[in-house]
Formats: sequence, structure tokens, C-alpha cells
Amino acid sequence: MRNTSCRRLFILISFLMAILSVSSTAAQDKDLVVRIARLRIDSAQLDNYKAALKEHAETAIRVEPGVLTLYAVYEKNDPTHVTVFEIYAGPDAYQAHLQTPHFMKYKTTTKNMVKSLELIETVPIALESKFKNPN
Amino acid sequence: MRNTSCRRLFILISFLMAILSVSSTAAQDKDLVVRIARLRIDSAQLDNYKAALKEHAETAIRVEPGVLTLYAVYEKNDPTHVTVFEIYAGPDAYQAHLQTPHFMKYKTTTKNMVKSLELIETVPIALESKFKNPN
Repeated sequence: MRNTSCRRLFILISFLMAILSVSSTAAQDKDLVVRIARLRIDSAQLDNYKAALKEHAETAIRVEPGVLTLYAVYEKNDPTHVTVFEIYAGPDAYQAHLQTPHFMKYKTTTKNMVKSLELIETVPIALESKFKNPN
Repeated sequence: MRNTSCRRLFILISFLMAILSVSSTAAQDKDLVVRIARLRIDSAQLDNYKAALKEHAETAIRVEPGVLTLYAVYEKNDPTHVTVFEIYAGPDAYQAHLQTPHFMKYKTTTKNMVKSLELIETVPIALESKFKNPN
């Protein structure tokens, strides 16, 4: 009798853990924070801005587990137009990112270089990649 | 005498191969085609459009070695605004992509869903990522 109860309890616990595991994975996908930053940069300070942004992106990806992608580019036809495509593991990872020394350094350094900043919250349709940065 | 000549020839060949190897890597980085597509979609056909784009992105990344990244998102504040961040291994990979059956199918299927399309050629500042698509 006691053995049967134990077995039932064990099966119930395994079942609940399986459900929790599946819902946790689903929540992880759903929680991704994906956004696009569009910036206009002072043309006289463009090289300094690009160096600061590059350093910031490399550091954030290296040291923050929740910063998953920072793709930063400028437009060929107007190099003062910069776009950053950003993926964070979730809202907590994004909030933690804003408090890091490297993010605060980037914001302070570039404060007078950025003429405008538009932040666009997005929802993924497809996030397909096999790109490996050779650096 | 013959041994010395052989050794010199060997050193020369090694040296040339090292130069070729370095310049090939540099060309690979430099040749990346990175662009942003900004689209406006007919709101009545949005779900069909998103399904077509998702299928196209998944197929292109799976079957084309030179299609490295297709990140497709829509804006939370206006789901008819779609952005695709695209990385190709080089101009040849991009031209080959345009001739594939899945790309032609995507273009035909979505022809009457896309109200406007802006293609922006870009230059990378930083392409940092450790994101793994769980799908």
C-alpha cells in the first residue's frame, strides 16, 4: 500500500516537473526582448561614436549572459544613420544591462555625439542565423 | 646546393600561402553583404504575410550556405511595419539567393501583400551575437 502511494507520488512529481520544464522553455522564447535602435550621429564625431559603440557591443556580449545579439550598422548612403538590432534573454536581462559599467560608460561617452535616438519595440517573426563573427 | 635551393623554395611557398590565407580571411569579412529591408504590409493580409516570411527565412538559412542571418520582426506599436536584418556571405551569395525557388515563391506569394519596400545597404560597426534560435 505504502509502496503504491510512493510510486503514484513519484509519477505525479515527474509529471509536474515535465510540465514546468516545458512551460519554462516556452516562457524563455516568449520573453525575448527584441528591439531596434535608430540613431543619428553628429557627422564630426562619427569615428569616435563607432569606436565607442563597437567597444560597448563587444563587452556586453562577452560579459553579460542575457545580452544575446547586438548587430550595429551604419547606412552606406548616409553614415550618420546608425541602426542597432538587439536581442536580450528577457526583461530582467535588459534591465540588468542598463545598470552595467560598460553601458553607463557608453552612454556618458556618446551623450554629445547622438543627435537623436528612436527605440522600437518589436515582436519576432523569424530569428534565423548561422552567422559566426570571425573576430 | 640543391638542398639549399629546395629549402628556399619551400620557405617562399610557405610565405606566399600565409599571405594568401590572411588576405582570403580579410576578403571574407569585407565581402559580407549586410542590409536592412523595411516593409509595410497590407493589414488585412498580415498573418499570411508573416507565415510566408517565416517559411522563407527558415528555408533560406537551412538550404543556402551563403545566407547567414535573416532576423525578421514587426513593430509592437504598428504590426504592419516589418523589418528584416539580413547578412549574406558576399555579393555572389546574395545574387544566388535571388534565383532560388524559395525566394521566387516568397516574392510571388507576397507580391500583393507588400505595400512598400525600402532596401538599405549598410556597413557593419559590430556584429556580435551568441543567440541560438531554440527552434
